Amino acid sequence: MRPTRVALLDGGSMAIDGYKVYWNRGPGGDIRFPVYSVLVDHEDGLFIYDTGFDLEHMTKFVPQDQAIQAPDQTLPGQLAKLGLKPEDVTHVLSSHLHIDHAGGHKHFPGATVVVHEDEYAQASNPPLFEKLSYSDLNYDAVLTAKRDKVEPPAGAFEPKYRFIRGDVEIAKDVWLWETPGHAAGHYSLMVKPAGRRPMLFCGDVAMTPRNLELLCLGSFHLDPTRAIASLQRVIKLAEEHDAEIFCSHSMPDFVTWKKAPEWYE
Amino acid sequence: MRPTRVALLDGGSMAIDGYKVYWNRGPGGDIRFPVYSVLVDHEDGLFIYDTGFDLEHMTKFVPQDQAIQAPDQTLPGQLAKLGLKPEDVTHVLSSHLHIDHAGGHKHFPGATVVVHEDEYAQASNPPLFEKLSYSDLNYDAVLTAKRDKVEPPAGAFEPKYRFIRGDVEIAKDVWLWETPGHAAGHYSLMVKPAGRRPMLFCGDVAMTPRNLELLCLGSFHLDPTRAIASLQRVIKLAEEHDAEIFCSHSMPDFVTWKKAPEWYE
Repeated sequence: MRPTRVALLDGGSMAIDGYKVYWNRGPGGDIRFPVYSVLVDHEDGLFIYDTGFDLEHMTKFVPQDQAIQAPDQTLPGQLAKLGLKPEDVTHVLSSHLHIDHAGGHKHFPGATVVVHEDEYAQASNPPLFEKLSYSDLNYDAVLTAKRDKVEPPAGAFEPKYRFIRGDVEIAKDVWLWETPGHAAGHYSLMVKPAGRRPMLFCGDVAMTPRNLELLCLGSFHLDPTRAIASLQRVIKLAEEHDAEIFCSHSMPDFVTWKKAPEWYE
Repeated sequence: MRPTRVALLDGGSMAIDGYKVYWNRGPGGDIRFPVYSVLVDHEDGLFIYDTGFDLEHMTKFVPQDQAIQAPDQTLPGQLAKLGLKPEDVTHVLSSHLHIDHAGGHKHFPGATVVVHEDEYAQASNPPLFEKLSYSDLNYDAVLTAKRDKVEPPAGAFEPKYRFIRGDVEIAKDVWLWETPGHAAGHYSLMVKPAGRRPMLFCGDVAMTPRNLELLCLGSFHLDPTRAIASLQRVIKLAEEHDAEIFCSHSMPDFVTWKKAPEWYE
């Protein structure tokens, strides 16, 4: 049996105001933060959790977020560092379908996309304040058409989905924990590499450790009451499983982590 | 029959960051805004919609909001300008029970407090991110004890409530429209003075006209999906009734309005 290992794929960075990172608390001023994907090399397949943003889309539709992405920070570029190709990825695990977490799904048209069923439903019909967050559904022409309330073009591409809800062990020691609030259907990922304690990737439940420390939400959210419960859940999960929490967007932490071509094994 | 008239009672001002007024949009930087109450002199009674903040409480618990309130900006001071006393008020109509809308309820222990039943329930058990918003329930020792999960002191004072839900015509041409999202149970007030078009006080559905123009929520909210629907509802109500919208916290507008001792008649 192949031992499970994990690599972090650097997807570039963005910058937003501190009031967007720390809801109603701030302080204000630009905070530049990393965007990354988690690659899980497992006996049962090659899983990628989140796929970052698409630079062209961000530059065109969200220029205020000042996205930066070097050519080797694209997913093909990052996978190449590990001697891998996009076609090797068998499953895309979505924390949620926001613009900076699903922008690279298009690189994996042959993979199964595992996503919360409520998240797919929300992306297909977002409220006004989430429209920009779901503006990049380019990996699924059928979903894009649903969202835009138009007929999908003939032969429109739709990836293979596995819709889930509740907590799911996707493969041995690879858990998706249901942590909604930031988005309608949001999953945190916990993986136990062969030779180290579990890694808990909490997605946008906590952009940074300060969100956890203060129990302060990020300012982008659908349901703050559920989001607070998810923050508390992540803290509890980490305690219960002796897991290390990896927040989604913390530059001071990200610079200290191992990144591809290195592995956590 | 006494003709209905309306007076605006200046309750002082506060200042918060622009990202708190315009959720995820800003720009940042302090915005100073007015806090006011609406007095409705009606055949059926003397109604007050919202009661502003208590300066002592704000200074102690929310110093970051930089509350300013001159002695004549308290409710007794404002009512005196009209030749009235707090005891003359028969009904307190609550948009919601947040700190800057219910801080003066204590001046009216003999009045009936009209409030959405969901709002009372929420105030009695707020989530973490709303605790500060419901920190000033000093007008009701029983509710305060419920919130704090302690036994109420013997003989604790509880005002007389009228709990409502849905749209309610409280008196002829005095409407409370259900507009939730900012808070669990939130009401906008519409009044038709005898000699002018209806006045629609939308509470914290829209702190300023820019919230309405951009369909941008304020950043303090419980349920942004319902809050967006309430923004759209206020716009529609104003159109349907040819009503003038009065936002809750817009200084550029407030300085142009008539204030007590003047009346809108």
